[in-house]
Amino acid sequence: MNLVLFEEHELQTGGLLVLSDVRAEHIRKVLGLLVDDSLRIGMINGTLGRGTVLSIDAEAVTLAVQLDREPPPLVPVELILALPRPIMLQRILKQAATIGVGRIHLLRSAKVEKSFFHSPALLPEKIRERLLEGLAQATVDTRLPEVCIHPLFKVFVQDALPELEGCRLLAHPGVLPTLPEVFPRSKERILLAVGPEGGWNDYEVSCFLEQGFAAFAMGSRILHVDTAVAVLLGQLALLRTLTAG
Amino acid sequence: MNLVLFEEHELQTGGLLVLSDVRAEHIRKVLGLLVDDSLRIGMINGTLGRGTVLSIDAEAVTLAVQLDREPPPLVPVELILALPRPIMLQRILKQAATIGVGRIHLLRSAKVEKSFFHSPALLPEKIRERLLEGLAQATVDTRLPEVCIHPLFKVFVQDALPELEGCRLLAHPGVLPTLPEVFPRSKERILLAVGPEGGWNDYEVSCFLEQGFAAFAMGSRILHVDTAVAVLLGQLALLRTLTAG
Repeated sequence: MNLVLFEEHELQTGGLLVLSDVRAEHIRKVLGLLVDDSLRIGMINGTLGRGTVLSIDAEAVTLAVQLDREPPPLVPVELILALPRPIMLQRILKQAATIGVGRIHLLRSAKVEKSFFHSPALLPEKIRERLLEGLAQATVDTRLPEVCIHPLFKVFVQDALPELEGCRLLAHPGVLPTLPEVFPRSKERILLAVGPEGGWNDYEVSCFLEQGFAAFAMGSRILHVDTAVAVLLGQLALLRTLTAG
Repeated sequence: MNLVLFEEHELQTGGLLVLSDVRAEHIRKVLGLLVDDSLRIGMINGTLGRGTVLSIDAEAVTLAVQLDREPPPLVPVELILALPRPIMLQRILKQAATIGVGRIHLLRSAKVEKSFFHSPALLPEKIRERLLEGLAQATVDTRLPEVCIHPLFKVFVQDALPELEGCRLLAHPGVLPTLPEVFPRSKERILLAVGPEGGWNDYEVSCFLEQGFAAFAMGSRILHVDTAVAVLLGQLALLRTLTAG
């Protein structure tokens, strides 16, 4: 936990924050702070700053809060993922929040097991926990990514996808173009679709192509989805820098 | 398991392979193969091809092996990592094997807990398991990365590091240069050093710089080591492609 996050409604008048849950325990046991020490804090979906310990005991930690910094820009990439298996999903949610993705779509695909949609990992409070962990890791950001769950592929493609803005890129093994070849020269946002490890099926690929997606391949090695997402977000960030320069 | 791997000594005369362990179970239960079906197989550190099921029962699976394909080139990047905590280490080993890293150095750093060096995750057979999982994921490679453990930072820097070849890059938060600015124009190998999440300390950084490393920063967000490694390997691969073009 490189950053202690709190909700706006937790902030009391006079800029006081009283913590008595795992965050208090973290401040006491892991950080080992004493009165007058300070730590990085951030208001969820708000600004960041420092909290100075006013009092600390076994019950609670009281901080004087000073917020003075905006989080850095989000990554201009919106992720569209075939719903991964729960353990992988948890890792990807955390990772995406750390990297600064603003919105993630999780959708049904022929190669996604139906049971994944009934996993407790998809409960709103569980998703939120993972995202907060990701923000606490990132250290500099407070903005919770939006997570949209689409249990029907066709409904997503017909109703949700046409409303989404950005240059549409589809990671798909076996095609010839590479990422630099499909990367847009303009500075528009990117909608990046990454399939399940077995790949999208032919029908799904044709739906994406009809909706204006350009397919590209990542090479012959089959990466786990979390690795593929990290690699692609890294490459997109780099391409954006190089194009801007 | 996208690829079933076996040892050279397991191959019998006439190209027969008899499996009776988890691999046989995978072929029976997950792949559900029958006689005359075939699957992707590879000889560890050797060639790849297909195995055709000659017989299959509760005891064993016998395959007729046909090897006819070389694995793709390894990634020309050698990783130098401060030893991560065991659960992260396991993930990184697997991921590095999947991506095609040839050699990984794990070393002591001031911010690495000493206990990590006594973790069962560092036993040779455990390391090998994780690497094989990574290769089975990658689907197209059989080459086990070499993993070198360096329990003393100074000994690594003085004795091992001078022998390593390649352009030396150090990921280090807070410096100004970015990866494209320190990336070599020549096609040489890269030695990439990635610190613990708390960062290398000043002494460690000065040792790397004395040994010819160029430091670069990845931005303000603090990524988990596995995410950082995937992002960097993705960016290095992209820079190599763009430079070659």
